[in-house]
Amino acid sequence: MRHIRIFDTTLRDGEQSPGVALSMQQKLEIAQGLARLNVDIIEAGFPVNGAAEFECVSRVAREVRGPTIAGLARLVKLDIERAAAALEPAEKRRIHVFTSASKVHLEHILRKTPEQILELSDQMVRYARQFTDDVEFSAQDVMRADIDFVLKLYNVAVDAGATTINIPDTTGYGTPLEYGRVIKRIYDDVVRGRDHIHISAHCHDDLGMATANSLAAVENGATQIECTINGIGERAGNTSLEEVVMALYVRRDHYGAATQIHTRELYRLSRMVERYSGMVVQANKAIVGDNAFAHESGIHQDGVIKHKETYEIMNAELVGREAAVLVLGKHSGRAAFKKTLKDLGYDLDNPVPDQGMTEDTVNMLFKRFKEVADRKGVMDAEEIRALVENEAAPQAKLFELEHLQFMSGGGNLPTATVVVKTPKGSKTEVAVGDGPVDAVYKALSDAIGLKPELEIYRVEAVTGSTEALGEVTVKLKLGEMIATGNGVSPDVIEASARAYLDAANKLAAGQARRQPTPIEEVQRRGPDE
Amino acid sequence: MRHIRIFDTTLRDGEQSPGVALSMQQKLEIAQGLARLNVDIIEAGFPVNGAAEFECVSRVAREVRGPTIAGLARLVKLDIERAAAALEPAEKRRIHVFTSASKVHLEHILRKTPEQILELSDQMVRYARQFTDDVEFSAQDVMRADIDFVLKLYNVAVDAGATTINIPDTTGYGTPLEYGRVIKRIYDDVVRGRDHIHISAHCHDDLGMATANSLAAVENGATQIECTINGIGERAGNTSLEEVVMALYVRRDHYGAATQIHTRELYRLSRMVERYSGMVVQANKAIVGDNAFAHESGIHQDGVIKHKETYEIMNAELVGREAAVLVLGKHSGRAAFKKTLKDLGYDLDNPVPDQGMTEDTVNMLFKRFKEVADRKGVMDAEEIRALVENEAAPQAKLFELEHLQFMSGGGNLPTATVVVKTPKGSKTEVAVGDGPVDAVYKALSDAIGLKPELEIYRVEAVTGSTEALGEVTVKLKLGEMIATGNGVSPDVIEASARAYLDAANKLAAGQARRQPTPIEEVQRRGPDE
Repeated sequence: MRHIRIFDTTLRDGEQSPGVALSMQQKLEIAQGLARLNVDIIEAGFPVNGAAEFECVSRVAREVRGPTIAGLARLVKLDIERAAAALEPAEKRRIHVFTSASKVHLEHILRKTPEQILELSDQMVRYARQFTDDVEFSAQDVMRADIDFVLKLYNVAVDAGATTINIPDTTGYGTPLEYGRVIKRIYDDVVRGRDHIHISAHCHDDLGMATANSLAAVENGATQIECTINGIGERAGNTSLEEVVMALYVRRDHYGAATQIHTRELYRLSRMVERYSGMVVQANKAIVGDNAFAHESGIHQDGVIKHKETYEIMNAELVGREAAVLVLGKHSGRAAFKKTLKDLGYDLDNPVPDQGMTEDTVNMLFKRFKEVADRKGVMDAEEIRALVENEAAPQAKLFELEHLQFMSGGGNLPTATVVVKTPKGSKTEVAVGDGPVDAVYKALSDAIGLKPELEIYRVEAVTGSTEALGEVTVKLKLGEMIATGNGVSPDVIEASARAYLDAANKLAAGQARRQPTPIEEVQRRGPDE
Repeated sequence: MRHIRIFDTTLRDGEQSPGVALSMQQKLEIAQGLARLNVDIIEAGFPVNGAAEFECVSRVAREVRGPTIAGLARLVKLDIERAAAALEPAEKRRIHVFTSASKVHLEHILRKTPEQILELSDQMVRYARQFTDDVEFSAQDVMRADIDFVLKLYNVAVDAGATTINIPDTTGYGTPLEYGRVIKRIYDDVVRGRDHIHISAHCHDDLGMATANSLAAVENGATQIECTINGIGERAGNTSLEEVVMALYVRRDHYGAATQIHTRELYRLSRMVERYSGMVVQANKAIVGDNAFAHESGIHQDGVIKHKETYEIMNAELVGREAAVLVLGKHSGRAAFKKTLKDLGYDLDNPVPDQGMTEDTVNMLFKRFKEVADRKGVMDAEEIRALVENEAAPQAKLFELEHLQFMSGGGNLPTATVVVKTPKGSKTEVAVGDGPVDAVYKALSDAIGLKPELEIYRVEAVTGSTEALGEVTVKLKLGEMIATGNGVSPDVIEASARAYLDAANKLAAGQARRQPTPIEEVQRRGPDE
């Protein structure tokens, strides 16, 4: 079986989704998750794009072992130098340089002639090779470019030393037949006879065909797929990692190719990315959606269960969806709690510095577990997972909720009272709003002395019962910074307050992502290939 | 250009999503929306599957003009007779008979030999033709069946008078290459020379390839695609109508085929189905997700806006996503409100009996609009759309919220007081809960004298600001009945109460869907082809 490399770009192209703002800590946790998943390459960011981005790539390179770590760079010396510097601590490093191939991109974005692009590509791939043997080369918007120029460009890149050539369908315009044909032509014209060169597929889902296009590339000679967890990314997003991985597995008879992915880690990482990014996964999403597996959705039970294969082409356990629901109660002790964490796949034995499961973290989690379990009786596996993923990431907590009360309805104006611990001591504030959440948010804003705008507010029950935990996700914007916050509580108003302070803490600690201005966006950001 | 028929099965296969329970009224509104969209065929249900299903198909057949109305039937005389009776009032009617083609289905579900299936198919297609000239024939699980048997079966069906043959990839197992090849073989072996026969693609998204598979079918001779709005359906769902329609449009150069869909109706219908089904559409969903269009997501602005084509392959207006945001304020009068409804595409001039926009409905909506606008100042297009779609469907309202108050936090137990108008007069109840929503739901349950279980609880802000309307969706289960309810209010707790009573009204009025037992599920339901 051919080996297909999985190149994950959740932290780079995925993070360019509107409103997504991952903190450094969250990025490190996702990168660790990707390493557990056993992806071949993690694209950790675009190092020249600011100090925070550089630092993030550098920390992933230093702390994450297993996968090759990649950093993005334009065909610019400074970009390549910054990428090389950020990747320096990595076990295995890749510099990923990119340009564009289509006329509209050359004229309006790069403002260069085709000849200039060919020359720059040659020079900058050679320059990147001075820092590492592993150089990837991409040309945006291939599907709308002149194929002869495309072939010339990739030949120049390979001659200059690129070891992987990536073929982005930047606008999600391609069809499987057509994208497959382009890959075939590139294989025939550029790669044939140079079999150490990898062709990579990078697709977008604007017409709903990113997965099929990526797999059509595999049928035509590609040996790498670029993708993101849950298919997050700009517009309709990137290729879904979980879909291409499971399609290659389930249909290995057809594709004759295999990945090295530990599929049982898929579901947990999908949930983590959903929480951290605030990008909800719809119930009818393939592989990771709530309804994706029939036997979980309560239908086809009993009568059909013994002939599962009548409606199932893969097993839910294969992607790490526990059939058995673990339940802990308010009387459960620390040992039982720790065992559950282990059963859920958290690594308590090898805590990574600053990341999650140190003994202190377990103690903190156990304390929050007891608080919640005392109020709601029992918690199942999903609820404990939610609690851990919302609470485990240690961060500077400038603001903490000490007290919350509110009343509303019946002719009263919705009124909230909060007490918040701040660096200047405890602040008590009262506010009136349109509803209780609005009132609480106004009071919290007064208490922390910041006036962020609320960009997104979303509540979901972690499981479906009246006593379910409510999980609130908010996105706050303050000037040019945006941050996502999560809060979990049986009381939806309290969960809302916790989510607000979580995001406010990130804004105050500068962990939020600065939102680029439109001009910087064009000049500095990575391609949304 | 070849004409590709769009066969929508939102009301049949889509409605089989776990937990989805559309009321008769909601189904009629969706069917009217599908008629505005100009689909070729609406599959309205499976008439033999109970009185409610029969009545629904019959009402769609009577009230919806334009599309052909289809009803599903097994290879059973009674099924065909019930379908024919339900479809009797339709302008154009189609009976859709189905069986299975794979060994595992024949042995475990149908318990018949291949010879028996061939004979039954012949007899029952002929029988269906006695009621209509338009008969569709499907064999489930084609992708895992013996191809020689498949060809024989479809030839028998066409010889017996089937005018459309549908090729279901029941388990979402196929790849575009492979599904395309099957379609090609069926075209060559069954259809060639009988060009009045239509081949239909029916795909599922378990591996994320339903759209690509359907379009591969078009490349190989299919002239009908079966699909659902937002791709809802069991497991990972069916083919998304909006994806295949827009892919055929955007890539008409490649496919050389066209649908008759009025694409500007897509977004409104997508939102309606999202609300009524409670199946949330993720932000990175192609065509209809919140982020699907770059220019809406706040990036690529200014600097890039004049070269839209650099990152956009289609225009948001084309699918009915208004670039201009209409805003109404609390001082807006009835005329402005009516004008906004018209601008949003609601048909005020030709109100359908029992459906929405009669003068009484407009008055009721205007009253609710004023209540909400008085509290929150202004409402934009999305918020008005949400209000209309949550309030417009007239239904028997046994229970109405007269008064609501609650308090929580600060050491107090969350406490709610409600007054509900019931058929037995106003009931006042007080309850304590884990949080305010729990307390309100307990009080409401006491007031209405029913104890439904809460299956799903979800809140979304209709737009992203502190003063946004909260929209709550709940699913309640009472015995074997399930119902979805929605509520909208600036106060999330009030919205929660409204959603609960909305669902409770449906349960009480018997508009909810009865949840079939597992054995009935196997014996009586339509195929999840």
